[in-house]
Amino acid sequence: MTVLYKSDPLRGAIWAKRFAELAPHIPFRVWPDIGDPAAIRYLIAWQPDDLPITLPNLEVVFSVGAGVDQLDLARIPAHLPVVRMIEPGIVDGMIEYVTEAVLSIHRDLFDYVLQQRARRWKPMLLTPAASRRVGVLGLGVLGTAVLERLRIFGFPCAGWSRSSRDIKGVECFAGEAAFDVFLARTDVLVCLLPLTDATRGFLDKHVFAALPKGASIVHVGRGPQLITNDLLEALDSGQIHSAVIDVTDPEPLPADHPLWDHQRVRITPHIASATCPVTAADAVLENLRRLRQGKPMIGEIDRARGY
Amino acid sequence: MTVLYKSDPLRGAIWAKRFAELAPHIPFRVWPDIGDPAAIRYLIAWQPDDLPITLPNLEVVFSVGAGVDQLDLARIPAHLPVVRMIEPGIVDGMIEYVTEAVLSIHRDLFDYVLQQRARRWKPMLLTPAASRRVGVLGLGVLGTAVLERLRIFGFPCAGWSRSSRDIKGVECFAGEAAFDVFLARTDVLVCLLPLTDATRGFLDKHVFAALPKGASIVHVGRGPQLITNDLLEALDSGQIHSAVIDVTDPEPLPADHPLWDHQRVRITPHIASATCPVTAADAVLENLRRLRQGKPMIGEIDRARGY
Repeated sequence: MTVLYKSDPLRGAIWAKRFAELAPHIPFRVWPDIGDPAAIRYLIAWQPDDLPITLPNLEVVFSVGAGVDQLDLARIPAHLPVVRMIEPGIVDGMIEYVTEAVLSIHRDLFDYVLQQRARRWKPMLLTPAASRRVGVLGLGVLGTAVLERLRIFGFPCAGWSRSSRDIKGVECFAGEAAFDVFLARTDVLVCLLPLTDATRGFLDKHVFAALPKGASIVHVGRGPQLITNDLLEALDSGQIHSAVIDVTDPEPLPADHPLWDHQRVRITPHIASATCPVTAADAVLENLRRLRQGKPMIGEIDRARGY
Repeated sequence: MTVLYKSDPLRGAIWAKRFAELAPHIPFRVWPDIGDPAAIRYLIAWQPDDLPITLPNLEVVFSVGAGVDQLDLARIPAHLPVVRMIEPGIVDGMIEYVTEAVLSIHRDLFDYVLQQRARRWKPMLLTPAASRRVGVLGLGVLGTAVLERLRIFGFPCAGWSRSSRDIKGVECFAGEAAFDVFLARTDVLVCLLPLTDATRGFLDKHVFAALPKGASIVHVGRGPQLITNDLLEALDSGQIHSAVIDVTDPEPLPADHPLWDHQRVRITPHIASATCPVTAADAVLENLRRLRQGKPMIGEIDRARGY
């Protein structure tokens, strides 16, 4: 029941150490040192390429990331379960990043940074958190965790997802019919949607126009969900006040891209959240236990839906 | 039992409205329209000047701010209680500002902003919150509230104050003897000390040298507590990585001051937190009730200690 890991080798060494400590009976190999292909049952990968087709006894493909959009599902045989990464490191990182972004928008820091550059001391009126409505697109593990943290600050919190959800203290909207109502009540829009055919190009001029004038965007989903030109136009017209963007299309963002030096856009290089190898190894080991016990694995995707 | 308010008149109108709603039996006047000086029992002021001496029947002086350092205590007769402002608006604002500042330091945003200006996409390794030690100077209402919020993020939290305190989940240090031990374990130092003769010039080269190399500062106390030149030297040597500064000396910070354009200093114009007139009026009304019932008022200062 060998496990094969194919991703960043430095992180792979940390995975291997954790497996050796907690599950010394499970052989753990780091690609390209795969040994006997027939022995490999479990593949942990960022981009598995053709391994799922060529490994004859493979039973599960684990993504090392929270998303699976980097996987080419067509190259993974239909009988193999695909599991995305749900582990506390990813969740904590996302909570930190989004909380900082929302607070920084809420406390007018884009404007204060511009004032600082102009050496200008000009206090602005403080908006109470109760008057800053936050809305999160995507109510999976990450969206839910982010909303639960933001609620503590007193922001009126809402979420939107395809199917209906119930989160304590959060106004939940579901489906296309409720989308514009959700947008119209949202001052800070956080995108945490998975990348699928349905969400590609989702953040477009229609979305920006449906938000209240002066709303802000925090984009921590996937780069191809955002129509950059629509955002730049909405920023220039004042419809959108500011944007915090962690994911772009393409990545890395080319040096000549206009997003880089818009003064009300903050770009970070896809660092909102990252898998922590130690807790990720624990999450895979827990899923292997569940598999042995015939329980559903945590994070197994619906291959038809794509997330 | 007339109340006299002497501070920003626009905010004064909100105070007056709240008093009219909740305590219509208490006459509320906004300076300079003081009416009969002998009728005034309670003064709510930012800078009362000589009013405490000239109002013959004055019983209490309320500061509109969280601090009382702007008051000249020598010009307030010794028998008058002086009460600083403790109300949820100030506390919430401070929690928001400090949480944003600590998260922004924790998530390397000073460095990412510089990378963005250079159009450079370069992810850095993420530090877990468990490895980022936060320390707060000053464990009053604000310091305690800030630590209780930061704990939720998993930062190892400590606090230092003159006299010993006990806050759940926070390592509390007290007095001069414990000061260097507190500094040596603190990666992000938050200053929330009151301004007194003992804290003037407190944030100096000795403090910066006692912190671990690469520590950061969040200064939300009072401007005169910071020796600016010592901070600039510590930033330039790399001993201090970055600083978020909301209070300066003088305020407004002059346009030619070197703090303005240090690239690892963020300046905001004393906006971390502001009294909310509505909840502040509620806090004063509550203290007037306590006074009638012979209970101690919330926020009454020790005039000998100065805070």
